[in-house]
Amino acid sequence: MKIKRKGILFVISAPSGAGKTTLCREAMKRLDNLEFSISYTTRPPRPGEEEGRDYHFVDEETFLKMVERGDLAEWARVYNHLYGTPKAPLIKAIEEGRDILLDIDIQGASQIKAVFPDDAVPIFVFPPSMDVLKERLSTRGTDPPQVIRERWAKAEEEMAMYPLFRYFVVNDELEEAVEDLTAIIKAERHRVNRLRETQW
Amino acid sequence: MKIKRKGILFVISAPSGAGKTTLCREAMKRLDNLEFSISYTTRPPRPGEEEGRDYHFVDEETFLKMVERGDLAEWARVYNHLYGTPKAPLIKAIEEGRDILLDIDIQGASQIKAVFPDDAVPIFVFPPSMDVLKERLSTRGTDPPQVIRERWAKAEEEMAMYPLFRYFVVNDELEEAVEDLTAIIKAERHRVNRLRETQW
Repeated sequence: MKIKRKGILFVISAPSGAGKTTLCREAMKRLDNLEFSISYTTRPPRPGEEEGRDYHFVDEETFLKMVERGDLAEWARVYNHLYGTPKAPLIKAIEEGRDILLDIDIQGASQIKAVFPDDAVPIFVFPPSMDVLKERLSTRGTDPPQVIRERWAKAEEEMAMYPLFRYFVVNDELEEAVEDLTAIIKAERHRVNRLRETQW
Repeated sequence: MKIKRKGILFVISAPSGAGKTTLCREAMKRLDNLEFSISYTTRPPRPGEEEGRDYHFVDEETFLKMVERGDLAEWARVYNHLYGTPKAPLIKAIEEGRDILLDIDIQGASQIKAVFPDDAVPIFVFPPSMDVLKERLSTRGTDPPQVIRERWAKAEEEMAMYPLFRYFVVNDELEEAVEDLTAIIKAERHRVNRLRETQW
């Protein structure tokens, strides 16, 4: 039996501190036909970062032109820099049956879902518990209590957003969480409504 | 993190000869919290069959009363006997967070889906190819060519019903098919809309 199907956008979000990035990397190692989406940013490259692999590095004028033309599926200003996901590679991947993993914040995830309602699969990563999350957010550097409290408040706000997502993964035991995430990806690849051609 | 969720009805259908029953048995071995649905039938028990494990054996009058009262989620007459799936244990399982596997024909699957639109997950099993399916349907006993041709025609009709299902599994390599089916089951257990209570 021969099957052709549409590509899928797996959009993975979490409150910061949930361990999403490790989870995504592990899933990538175990699955074929899954690529990371490469964002555009106006932030200068850090040592070791490579144009086209980690980010597309552009200046603010170029970035804002992309926004104006509607080239970005989602974008945001974080502190002094702009970050955004280009639309064209996602459309091409869907067309060609390639799957994309988007490691993205919650706001961005809901924008992607709005632009690609049929092809985006939003997945929410829960931390093991609120206590663990708070601890993780407290031990970053030597921030004053006020900053840490603000971070907690933001994490609680973010946790409350999970009903916007289709799936959840609890990142307690990493191995189990990776298995759950890969199961979700495999299952979505077997949805009848993604079939393009079937031949017997 | 503590989670409570609704139970799920995994409804598995296939054209006859696709190898669905072996696939279901293998999946059952590997997964916790998954029970077979027990049907009612008016057919007499075969040697080795046990009341309440293989079927609930009832007489035609009892069966028809169940139909009348709306106790069955689906039912059908196959040759001279009646077969049906009781509704109450399914409702109870959904309520209690237990998952049920229903190994059922295509007609029955679409009835279950109509009765439980949110809680039924219909999965279609494809044979490796139409040729393999035809071969399997040809080698059963010593049926006359006419009977075999009718069986082929029915299988082709059944194959055409796959768009009514949410997922597909291709039963080519059994090991791979079992993995796909278990991935689907695991993924559906991680859908946000099945969450009842979450506690951090």
